[in-house]
Amino acid sequence: MQRAVRVGLIGFGTIGTGVVKLLKKNREQIRDRVGIPVNLVRIADIDTKRDRGVRLAKGVLVPDARAILNDPSIDIVIELMGGTGLARRFMLEAIQAKKDVATANKALLAHHGDEIFAAVERAGVEIGYEASVGGGIPIIRTLRESLGGDRHSALFGIVNGTTNYILSKMSEAGGEFAEVLAEAQTNGLAEADPTFDIDGVDAAHKLTLLVQLAFGCGCRFSDVATEGIRSITQEDIAFAGEFGYALKHLAVAVRTKDSIEARVHPAMVPLRHSLAAVNGALNAIVVDGEALETSMYVGLGAGMMPTATAVVGDLMEIARNRLHGCRGRVAPLGYPLSVRTRVRPLAASAASGTFYLRMRALDQPGVLARISGILGRAGVSIASMIQREPQRRGPVTLVFRTHCANHRALRRAVTAIHKLKAVRGEVVVIRIEDSLAQ
Amino acid sequence: MQRAVRVGLIGFGTIGTGVVKLLKKNREQIRDRVGIPVNLVRIADIDTKRDRGVRLAKGVLVPDARAILNDPSIDIVIELMGGTGLARRFMLEAIQAKKDVATANKALLAHHGDEIFAAVERAGVEIGYEASVGGGIPIIRTLRESLGGDRHSALFGIVNGTTNYILSKMSEAGGEFAEVLAEAQTNGLAEADPTFDIDGVDAAHKLTLLVQLAFGCGCRFSDVATEGIRSITQEDIAFAGEFGYALKHLAVAVRTKDSIEARVHPAMVPLRHSLAAVNGALNAIVVDGEALETSMYVGLGAGMMPTATAVVGDLMEIARNRLHGCRGRVAPLGYPLSVRTRVRPLAASAASGTFYLRMRALDQPGVLARISGILGRAGVSIASMIQREPQRRGPVTLVFRTHCANHRALRRAVTAIHKLKAVRGEVVVIRIEDSLAQ
Repeated sequence: MQRAVRVGLIGFGTIGTGVVKLLKKNREQIRDRVGIPVNLVRIADIDTKRDRGVRLAKGVLVPDARAILNDPSIDIVIELMGGTGLARRFMLEAIQAKKDVATANKALLAHHGDEIFAAVERAGVEIGYEASVGGGIPIIRTLRESLGGDRHSALFGIVNGTTNYILSKMSEAGGEFAEVLAEAQTNGLAEADPTFDIDGVDAAHKLTLLVQLAFGCGCRFSDVATEGIRSITQEDIAFAGEFGYALKHLAVAVRTKDSIEARVHPAMVPLRHSLAAVNGALNAIVVDGEALETSMYVGLGAGMMPTATAVVGDLMEIARNRLHGCRGRVAPLGYPLSVRTRVRPLAASAASGTFYLRMRALDQPGVLARISGILGRAGVSIASMIQREPQRRGPVTLVFRTHCANHRALRRAVTAIHKLKAVRGEVVVIRIEDSLAQ
Repeated sequence: MQRAVRVGLIGFGTIGTGVVKLLKKNREQIRDRVGIPVNLVRIADIDTKRDRGVRLAKGVLVPDARAILNDPSIDIVIELMGGTGLARRFMLEAIQAKKDVATANKALLAHHGDEIFAAVERAGVEIGYEASVGGGIPIIRTLRESLGGDRHSALFGIVNGTTNYILSKMSEAGGEFAEVLAEAQTNGLAEADPTFDIDGVDAAHKLTLLVQLAFGCGCRFSDVATEGIRSITQEDIAFAGEFGYALKHLAVAVRTKDSIEARVHPAMVPLRHSLAAVNGALNAIVVDGEALETSMYVGLGAGMMPTATAVVGDLMEIARNRLHGCRGRVAPLGYPLSVRTRVRPLAASAASGTFYLRMRALDQPGVLARISGILGRAGVSIASMIQREPQRRGPVTLVFRTHCANHRALRRAVTAIHKLKAVRGEVVVIRIEDSLAQ
């Protein structure tokens, strides 16, 4: 019988440091709960010099991941190096060497999940990736196990802390997108290169995983229609508030008759909905099940210690399964890949909904008629319109709310409106999510 | 290798019917996920005649639980009969026969958990009780496994749907407690005998379990200081709103230096707190961890299908563990009873806090001075006071908000105030939970 599990960590950054701290601080508790100690025996990182504020025994920190991958005494490899190149290779090597793996790398799993999960199934090892979505919120295990007897009809939520922080801040304290982003970067709440977060790529990575977990079907990263928050202005937030909505960056997946609609975009959420109150660095995921109906999971979606709890939770599960000789007890997605259905993703352009349109146009006779004419001919019916007096001479702001409209037709109309001489700058399109459950 | 698991159900009421429906409806999905079919082969209930709207094969429904307990071919027994007498005996018999068990019976586990959990550990079988707290919200598995690497500092929430419905309804639609309760009984949202719910007993049962799961320490039902909602009036709800609070029936557990404070009572929750928006039949549990910080779990806390998802989730976990030969992989509480600490529960009377006091007193000179004198001598300092003009001649309503005060001293003061001739009727004391995280 196994006396302890030996863990190697590749990538000694923020989350890695959190894992080291948590394993040390709660050492006895973890051993008592699992039944055997979980020992972190080696850490590989190119930077072996930087002080991370944790004391390690001599020889634990090494510069080369091979010292972990090639060590047959190491049972579990934690991959926290990020990226999809070397990380993928190391993961596959670890799995082929019959090691169990744990990771927080949603990009890797969104792009190479099929390959990695298949390797895990073949090797009969374990993969933990609770930290890859929602930080410490146990949404992966919840979908993979707890709710496995239900059929889900929809899943939506706030899964990126950076965009939620920026939108919350813009809404609470004012300020335009660029300033609030710069401030978030100063405070360490946005990356130096924030592209993945603010353009919705990170949220789409996470949604790719959530769709597969919740609906039992395949989902490729390219199946997710993705929009970021760069074009959101104070004006949009103010209009949203006036209409009774909060502006949120949502990840949404809806099961339709024979398809899955998966999309990431800014959205207007009714102020009475619980998601409207999820602010700052919090994440929240709402799951709609046929039997369970609506349930919601809220917590810090990032950060050293919150994310570390998810990694340590995975280590404990893997250690338990090793101790009890039942590795591979649960398939990576909660069901074997062999039973996964492949559904045709619904092209985002085909998904219908209600929309908010904002544009600036010259205050000339006939402009409004031309714009509404274009919308009308596209079959987009207008629910309400606001025209604001210009502060100085110049273009006026026009805001439209549509009735339920076909997204593709709407986009075509927007392109036509954008080409009008009297219309200046971008036409901003934001989905209104009136139909969210709860 | 096991080809299927055979399940027997004792107690064919609402939840039992939900379990039958869900197992039937999602039969293939459950088999695919677990790896083998989960077959419900026998149901025992005294009432074998009533039409529950589900079709059963002939001979499945029997009047005697012995047909399940004494059948060696049955692997898992679901106990949904309720109560703490026969249910306890049946559970212990099933466990001793090396059957796995699943239950929704919080009363049983709150009163006899030590005995049942010890029997489970000894027999090396499995016990699932996800359905016993929060309906389908997977809070048990979350505390037992996902968050097992963290140390929790507090846990609080709304864990009784009946009281939450009544308070939400009183607050939204008006009406006094007795009318709203009667209406809830008509709508099937309160039991014919609502005592366990409205007096907080059900919530205290659940808190007894949550404390043990979250803090790794023993907790007896009698350790929980329990108050119900019978004395809450429209006046209290209106004052709460004026002060910026919602009135909720909370279960609260706080880890102090060397003790656990566990209590169930009505409380004023700041309107900006997420719990304030949890209305109707919803339950919500907030967990404060040292590493994860605040996380929250929200969903329907009762009802046929929501609760059935939790039971079926347990069946799937047990079936997986049988298939993979790892029964007993996780101890009933997430840690073996042998490492459970026994902490002295903090007498509720000793817990300090800030409070709201409402009383009716004759509008006479000196009355206010006498009341404030009693509070002052007890060391209870007043933060604010409101006196309302009486609608007709008669006693006026006095409302006090205290600064942080010792609960025992406050209770003594309240007893003294109650004895004043000028004070009429009950003195209502409601805790103000200003310090809730998030």
